[in-house]
Amino acid sequence: MGWMQGFPPPADKLITQPDSNFFSFPKLRWSVCHLREFLPTEEISRGLGAPSTLRYPSAPRFADLRQEIDALSFTPLNAEAPMTWEQSLYANYTDGILILHEGEVVYERYFGCLDETGKHAAMSMTKSVTGLLGEILVAEGKLDDTLLVRDIIPEIGESAFATATVRQVMDMTTGVKYSEDYSDPNADIWLYSAAASPLPKPEGYTGPNGYWEYLQQVKPDGEHGAAFHYKTINSDMLGWIISRVTNKSVTELASERLWRPMGAEQDAYQTVDAKGVPFAGGGISASLRDLGRLGQIMLDEGAFGGKRLFPAEVVEHIRKGGDPSKFSGFPTIPNGSYTSQWWVFHNDHGAFAARGVHGQTIYVDPTAKMVLVRFASYPQAQNGFIDPTSLPAYQAVAEYLMSR
Amino acid sequence: MGWMQGFPPPADKLITQPDSNFFSFPKLRWSVCHLREFLPTEEISRGLGAPSTLRYPSAPRFADLRQEIDALSFTPLNAEAPMTWEQSLYANYTDGILILHEGEVVYERYFGCLDETGKHAAMSMTKSVTGLLGEILVAEGKLDDTLLVRDIIPEIGESAFATATVRQVMDMTTGVKYSEDYSDPNADIWLYSAAASPLPKPEGYTGPNGYWEYLQQVKPDGEHGAAFHYKTINSDMLGWIISRVTNKSVTELASERLWRPMGAEQDAYQTVDAKGVPFAGGGISASLRDLGRLGQIMLDEGAFGGKRLFPAEVVEHIRKGGDPSKFSGFPTIPNGSYTSQWWVFHNDHGAFAARGVHGQTIYVDPTAKMVLVRFASYPQAQNGFIDPTSLPAYQAVAEYLMSR
Repeated sequence: MGWMQGFPPPADKLITQPDSNFFSFPKLRWSVCHLREFLPTEEISRGLGAPSTLRYPSAPRFADLRQEIDALSFTPLNAEAPMTWEQSLYANYTDGILILHEGEVVYERYFGCLDETGKHAAMSMTKSVTGLLGEILVAEGKLDDTLLVRDIIPEIGESAFATATVRQVMDMTTGVKYSEDYSDPNADIWLYSAAASPLPKPEGYTGPNGYWEYLQQVKPDGEHGAAFHYKTINSDMLGWIISRVTNKSVTELASERLWRPMGAEQDAYQTVDAKGVPFAGGGISASLRDLGRLGQIMLDEGAFGGKRLFPAEVVEHIRKGGDPSKFSGFPTIPNGSYTSQWWVFHNDHGAFAARGVHGQTIYVDPTAKMVLVRFASYPQAQNGFIDPTSLPAYQAVAEYLMSR
Repeated sequence: MGWMQGFPPPADKLITQPDSNFFSFPKLRWSVCHLREFLPTEEISRGLGAPSTLRYPSAPRFADLRQEIDALSFTPLNAEAPMTWEQSLYANYTDGILILHEGEVVYERYFGCLDETGKHAAMSMTKSVTGLLGEILVAEGKLDDTLLVRDIIPEIGESAFATATVRQVMDMTTGVKYSEDYSDPNADIWLYSAAASPLPKPEGYTGPNGYWEYLQQVKPDGEHGAAFHYKTINSDMLGWIISRVTNKSVTELASERLWRPMGAEQDAYQTVDAKGVPFAGGGISASLRDLGRLGQIMLDEGAFGGKRLFPAEVVEHIRKGGDPSKFSGFPTIPNGSYTSQWWVFHNDHGAFAARGVHGQTIYVDPTAKMVLVRFASYPQAQNGFIDPTSLPAYQAVAEYLMSR
């Protein structure tokens, strides 16, 4: 019947539907594992059949490793007193943490609302999945990152995005007006949330309906390409570009290119707006182990279990990072950059990461051959609060694993 | 933190949230495969690991079987002209159909919005899952079906349900006021829908919030035990009873007792009200093959793949049926009965079924050793419209399979 076909579907084939949004500590501690119970969602299918095997040490060795890692000591940023690894898990409201070393699971613990069969909100790590899909399309020649957005999506119209390149969208160096200050009631984030909500719009609401309508009316703010500005609307702009180029939703593409070929253990899911558009900037919930598989793919430059999922140059590009001279505003990542929706630390180990508010991370350390995934429900959103007791802890584990 | 613990959770541990409802042809044809994209849902987890194997014939034999079954001819109820099996699939707006004979898949086809990795709304087949869980608890001595509802749930208060027995609830012979005439705008079904909706309540709404609050204020209508009346509120009453007795949501219990042990291929899911209570009377969406597994368990009296999931007496009880003298109102099932939320045909083959509006069925024919699962999106809700071109078709296939 053609319902909901196309990006977006024609008006007479569109089925719209309301919904809601939320998220505040302490309810957050429960909500992060139960997002689908509040919101409409789309599946990221693992497909059928058996999941791929994750390699574990023998049970006694695994227990020993846990003891040794729990006892590791490090000094938090801007602090004097040391802290143990295990203390940091509680300090950071960790819900689940998994460490892979040379492809083997050396540490795995669950807390709070999460267990091995649960899914947890990935928050802005979703951006990195979107960015990875975009980078795969670029590497495969299906998406030209030098094109302007309006070349791909003519109906972007007079939006400030129209004249940005795909690359600028991917690297968040667009000059677009969008304030994400959660404490300002007039911040654009709230207008965006209103547009994105699948709940019935309030009486008299005349604003945009859905992510993509919002993107069509974004105003300029500065020059494209001048500097990195962390603005979620870039990720949703990239999601639209990806869907236009592939004629697939980002959920379908994430299933085809990542979840199915990596042999995910569980389906993931992604929240949607009233028009069924997945939230490419923050909507994914997934299992801890499956994000471990994803991190391992990044460490292994696009391969998993001996199977190549995408060209190695995808990871090479991401790992190299963006232009650090354009990067600022994140004191806990002083030498960092952002490219293809991934954070690059430009540290000794060449580490890079997917990161989401309230403490979510996929942290890839190529030097230590370590992948670390953490889900958390830290009371405050910004990772600047969590990094002091996290980033040095990751470094300490990496050094321990390299030395053993 | 105790969020959402208990049935229901204490007021200060309750996280509430709005939502919506819908369903009309022709949008129905799409919506039946995408319910989670409109509504908050809870997962029925398959657990982790590999799914159980469904046995298939060789590909050439499978193709032959399809041809032979497609060509089968039968005469619809109240008709003179015969129809082929394949014609009946289109006449009935079939979305997916699976036939198992002696535990082997002999026929499997997908149409419309469904494919093998999709999930489809089970509608009132959900009741049969709820009823099966209830019957398992009865057989295991965890639920006494002679108790009154108020003995188990004191806060049912002055509701008409208070003085019904658990068995009357399971068999839908309660005397409770509830009209399900969809064409009457004042029918109770609409009040129930308003209570059940997870969307924000309209301004000035003073009615019950959620399934369970609704059940607390149901008025009497006739005597308990006198006759079968098909009323969905019984299923949700049973869901509450089950959750109270087990301290688990019906989704969790369905996962533990059915989806995990049967080695389901996919997670299923169930819609929820604003308080996170799953819709025990109609909220499940599942894959075709997994309902095939469930049907096979019913055929094999509680066992699957050599493993016993629950006592054989559960199926023996259901198959025996309810009291046909109390059954009326379904002209296409003239000799039928209803027990434990399953339909029993009392025909020559001893067939029984889970049934849902718009053409959903799990049809178990013990004589032919056949399980047939069909998902459909027939324009009209009542199965009375669909049975004429379905029930004789099932009989024709059963006879064909017995004769081959």
